[in-house]
Amino acid sequence: MISLEDIRAAARRIHGRVHHTPVFTSRLFNQAAGVQCWFKCENLQRAGAFKIRGAMNFLLSLTAAERRRGVVAFSSGNHAQAVALAALELGIPAAIVMPQDAPAVKREATLAYGAEVVFYDRRREDREAIGRQIAQQRGAILVPPFDHEWIIAGQGTAALELVEEVPDLDTLVVCIGGGGLIAGSAVAAQGRRVIGVEPERANDTWLSLRAGQRVEIPTPDTVADGLRATSPGKLTFPIVQRLVETVLLVSEEEILQTARFIHTRMKLVVEPSGAVAAAAVLHRKLSPACRRVGIILSGGNC
Amino acid sequence: MISLEDIRAAARRIHGRVHHTPVFTSRLFNQAAGVQCWFKCENLQRAGAFKIRGAMNFLLSLTAAERRRGVVAFSSGNHAQAVALAALELGIPAAIVMPQDAPAVKREATLAYGAEVVFYDRRREDREAIGRQIAQQRGAILVPPFDHEWIIAGQGTAALELVEEVPDLDTLVVCIGGGGLIAGSAVAAQGRRVIGVEPERANDTWLSLRAGQRVEIPTPDTVADGLRATSPGKLTFPIVQRLVETVLLVSEEEILQTARFIHTRMKLVVEPSGAVAAAAVLHRKLSPACRRVGIILSGGNC
Repeated sequence: MISLEDIRAAARRIHGRVHHTPVFTSRLFNQAAGVQCWFKCENLQRAGAFKIRGAMNFLLSLTAAERRRGVVAFSSGNHAQAVALAALELGIPAAIVMPQDAPAVKREATLAYGAEVVFYDRRREDREAIGRQIAQQRGAILVPPFDHEWIIAGQGTAALELVEEVPDLDTLVVCIGGGGLIAGSAVAAQGRRVIGVEPERANDTWLSLRAGQRVEIPTPDTVADGLRATSPGKLTFPIVQRLVETVLLVSEEEILQTARFIHTRMKLVVEPSGAVAAAAVLHRKLSPACRRVGIILSGGNC
Repeated sequence: MISLEDIRAAARRIHGRVHHTPVFTSRLFNQAAGVQCWFKCENLQRAGAFKIRGAMNFLLSLTAAERRRGVVAFSSGNHAQAVALAALELGIPAAIVMPQDAPAVKREATLAYGAEVVFYDRRREDREAIGRQIAQQRGAILVPPFDHEWIIAGQGTAALELVEEVPDLDTLVVCIGGGGLIAGSAVAAQGRRVIGVEPERANDTWLSLRAGQRVEIPTPDTVADGLRATSPGKLTFPIVQRLVETVLLVSEEEILQTARFIHTRMKLVVEPSGAVAAAAVLHRKLSPACRRVGIILSGGNC
């Protein structure tokens, strides 16, 4: 189980290597949502998303001998870029397993960070198997996207910074993919209400909470491409069960409309996944008990 | 002549009514520009640009009797929205004279702020004449876009916040339209080097400095539509002459490329005008003596 002290230790470890991102407020958003909100701008984080926090904490937690073995990650998205950037900075060789049809911007960014990119065919090959094979062949260390205590502790540092900067928040609203961000946030929240948000089409955690156990769904088809996990993690799910009050669902249209609102009215670039938590608030799905609401804008790579 | 104390007074006057905007840094930008930069994010300001600072300071400086007479402004751009929003909040009737072909987003925003919008034909009518006529007929007070000490003092509060937050800046880089922002910034800079930037196609201040007097150019055709003034102001020009070290020019392509860089790499929405100052820095036009550079991102309404 992750403790608050683990997150504080991660924060000290990654200090100076990731951005302390700004907290924004928007009267227009508050008016539209009918509640006061504070946005933690992880879309302005290095490599464009909160993922660098977990990746950096993971790599910094390795021993010198482990670092020499190199790391491997499988991801088409922000996790890949985060591992590539963190590895580049720490001088650790990195291989990223990525589908051939990954968005060009994410592919190029990963290459620009100096990682080796191993492509696979999304329809015919299994990226986890490829990742594990590379890890085994080279003796490299696999950096999991969410289900590891170093990753969870790293991701929790965003919420920790937010509650330290705005201590009188009563609620944190956080999107859920595999659950690394919300699990870390829930521990960092120190008793504040924590609410998860998933796309309706990627409701694996919502279903799992109702079932009382981890449920697996087919690969979801949602515009929020960062939240396409098919199942909550073994480590993250129990934390969500224990510390998250509820999980809200948002439609594709609500996600896109919110991303547009943030772009045109708040002048921030967010990717659809990064707008999912805000979408639930903007569409007034919170209970009236939520008065001072922290929202994590999780990423900005469109 | 505007003094630092005028700007401090403006800052006190508008405190709480405009955003204290965040200051950003970007390692990617620093790398590309070869110099350390701090961005004052007026693109995240209320109504999307620094203009609300001057407008709010102007309206708050009016007497109660003057406020009752209402205000009028002529602008197709950020000044219109700023006057409309400030007037709405202070309960002052406002009329905005705007060309029929103004961008829909700016028209709608002005209407949404509750102002009366008076359209005119850009090819056949003179907006200044219409503005003055309305002012005369109604006894309303004209809010000039830049050439007024209350406006200049208000605009200077952005640079004041920046140098208070990052005191060891040695250089401020600021775009020039009519000169309200740079004149206020130059006073607020308190002896730091101040560098102006204009689009090559809208180089009225650059020409005027060389001529030693205010030069008028035809209405410039530049993508930086907020900087289409045809001549520096009567009040702003002497301040620029005295306090601004030099004016740099940037091409249309440099402006657009910089706006794209800020959008894709820094995840901020800036309008082309808002990227003009940054464009000169990104394209390495500063002298090597500039080491710690403050840049005002002036607006975000695209």
